[in-house]
Amino acid sequence: MIVELISVGTELLLGNTINTNASYLARRCAKLGLSLYHQVTVGDNFDRLFDTIIVARERSDIIILTGGLGPTMDDITKEVVAKVVGKELIPDKHSEELLIKYFNLRHDKEITKNNYRQILKIEDSTVVDNNNGTAPGYIYEDDKGVIILLPGPPSEVIAMFEESIFPYLNEFQSQTIFSKMVKICGLGESKIETIIIDLINNQTNPTIAPYAKKGEVHLRITTLANTEEDADEIFAPTIKELQKRLGNLIFTLHEEELLETVVVNNLITNNLTISTGESCTGGLFSNRITNIPGASNVFKEGFITYSNEAKINNLGVKKSTIEQYGAISKEVAKEMALGLLYKTNSDFSIGITGNAGPESLEDKSNGLVYIACASKNNVIVEEFVIKGSRTKVKEYATTYALNLLRKELIKYDYL
Amino acid sequence: MIVELISVGTELLLGNTINTNASYLARRCAKLGLSLYHQVTVGDNFDRLFDTIIVARERSDIIILTGGLGPTMDDITKEVVAKVVGKELIPDKHSEELLIKYFNLRHDKEITKNNYRQILKIEDSTVVDNNNGTAPGYIYEDDKGVIILLPGPPSEVIAMFEESIFPYLNEFQSQTIFSKMVKICGLGESKIETIIIDLINNQTNPTIAPYAKKGEVHLRITTLANTEEDADEIFAPTIKELQKRLGNLIFTLHEEELLETVVVNNLITNNLTISTGESCTGGLFSNRITNIPGASNVFKEGFITYSNEAKINNLGVKKSTIEQYGAISKEVAKEMALGLLYKTNSDFSIGITGNAGPESLEDKSNGLVYIACASKNNVIVEEFVIKGSRTKVKEYATTYALNLLRKELIKYDYL
Repeated sequence: MIVELISVGTELLLGNTINTNASYLARRCAKLGLSLYHQVTVGDNFDRLFDTIIVARERSDIIILTGGLGPTMDDITKEVVAKVVGKELIPDKHSEELLIKYFNLRHDKEITKNNYRQILKIEDSTVVDNNNGTAPGYIYEDDKGVIILLPGPPSEVIAMFEESIFPYLNEFQSQTIFSKMVKICGLGESKIETIIIDLINNQTNPTIAPYAKKGEVHLRITTLANTEEDADEIFAPTIKELQKRLGNLIFTLHEEELLETVVVNNLITNNLTISTGESCTGGLFSNRITNIPGASNVFKEGFITYSNEAKINNLGVKKSTIEQYGAISKEVAKEMALGLLYKTNSDFSIGITGNAGPESLEDKSNGLVYIACASKNNVIVEEFVIKGSRTKVKEYATTYALNLLRKELIKYDYL
Repeated sequence: MIVELISVGTELLLGNTINTNASYLARRCAKLGLSLYHQVTVGDNFDRLFDTIIVARERSDIIILTGGLGPTMDDITKEVVAKVVGKELIPDKHSEELLIKYFNLRHDKEITKNNYRQILKIEDSTVVDNNNGTAPGYIYEDDKGVIILLPGPPSEVIAMFEESIFPYLNEFQSQTIFSKMVKICGLGESKIETIIIDLINNQTNPTIAPYAKKGEVHLRITTLANTEEDADEIFAPTIKELQKRLGNLIFTLHEEELLETVVVNNLITNNLTISTGESCTGGLFSNRITNIPGASNVFKEGFITYSNEAKINNLGVKKSTIEQYGAISKEVAKEMALGLLYKTNSDFSIGITGNAGPESLEDKSNGLVYIACASKNNVIVEEFVIKGSRTKVKEYATTYALNLLRKELIKYDYL
């Protein structure tokens, strides 16, 4: 079954409102196993909305409209759909009762005249109650397909979809879409594609789709199945093959799990502590670590050492090392991490030094970053060159530092 | 001139990615005075994208496509546009040079074969450089209109649009939309609305629209004008009235200027330094300060002191103060800031202690935060209760700390 989403509202076309309804409905339609090929946004304009619905009726089985059901004159979705299907708008007794009840509950009980536009329904349509607002929704069916009308506010859309529309649409499908997210850090998108190109080219079921995400690559593995257990069985060989080829580059199979979640949860589980010394990332690494609930149990101390003095006084970097190699160097990153480990008596420490731009420092190019990770038995330093804005350099350097820590945790069998 | 936005990418139709590009581009097109009547999202499918572009060419003068320019096989936007306009894809020398330069800067210098797809341009199109990624953009013009191709990642879209596309499109328009953003921190949205409700109710030209933004309130003042000078004349009485009523609560009139930009630029101008001691914000305050270019000249040292020991050892908080009042207290925040000022010899210092949740600490409720700002002549502590998730508490506390620092700078006549 092919579904099409039509978002109605001039505010969307002015960009004042981000269209979160579209992504929410897209996710739910995917879950229902419906194929979404087009999502269209149009303004509060009769002719353009009419044309858009006519086109959608030709190419899709189910149309879901959001927006344009309110009480004001620019709310025209019902009128347009009525014209498309050749029906009248007629007063609906049930909607009128609900409207009166709604206003009786309010402090201000007066029902303005325009509110009565909301009790009109498209002839032969089914009214969908709205428990969070005054505008009801509608389901209209004929031999050309199904048209579903929902209001615009996301809280109303979500509640009505979950309560009424999802169960209604679920009747059309036997199978639903399930997916796993294979999240990878430590290799670029094009490299990863080269390693798994045959899997992508020969994919049938499950499908594999790669996405580049700020220093990470995510592979979405998707299939249609009756139950989650059936889906897991379909996923198993593909995931096994990806794990064989990508090994430790994969840091999770769970969509909601972030790189910092993996790192912090494993520090917690193994009762390990971490301290941080940051120059160019300016606190972002510590911020991402401390975003994770429970971080206070593993995060000992953090130092943001922009200046050479701070590196020397707080982390024990040798003045001579800075003079000989410069503050942006492998040697300084290493001494930052080792000095921290000694000072804080943590199990792990991270030292980050580099140039986030926009100006070059010490004749070192923008985006040159050294990251060191120290533990009781080992210290390792990696060099990165990150192209882009100051905030991009900070973001990517932080991701690479989290990944270096993750790799060190793996080495010690903690992960 | 009519513009149409086409977002390309199956991930958008699966709902995994919220289409922020569409709202960003819609806002910028409104700014340019272009009429946006349709925004369409299609997946990575040759035929559907082809049909979508054909329809858009009929009804719109300018088409802006985002997504599908990357190195992998499912990136097909260039191929489809080439077919629509009847042109070939040809190798572009300049793009090849940039690609080689990009990979030479990287640690891993090997350019995989699929990356070379990105050096192909549509014959007769103009290449738009991408300084934040490997996929260039393109502008193609013929007698049917203009087609602009941009990559998918929002950071790349924004940078390329601001640098190249906005100036290019600006040439097409005579009257443009101008706006000022009156940004306010230190009072809630409903309070501010009460103060200015008569201005909002009686607005004609310019218009006033309030938006609540994570601890701040922004008022967008908008008008149509031929030049920026004309617009400024229309804005003047409204802005004067807002300044009269809101005074120092307003921190900027420039949309692109963040609270941290105002603070850091004023520290730079006045040759002042700042040090930070953060507990519950975990580095986010320092991170926001160091996001601003030039921060290295004013940011002396930062300490992330989750534990009591770190507060005592690194910031000189007295053990007895923690024992008497608890780590989450006005007294500890004050000692954090004063200790820092003494230790680092900075002009200003910020101490933040609180509970970001999700669990309550020391029987203090989630979201209770104390922020102290010290300078040579003064130390001030403010108490906040922030309702919400861990990351929300961190974000709002950071904004309030920046605003406290801003207010202290004003007091000292530096601002």
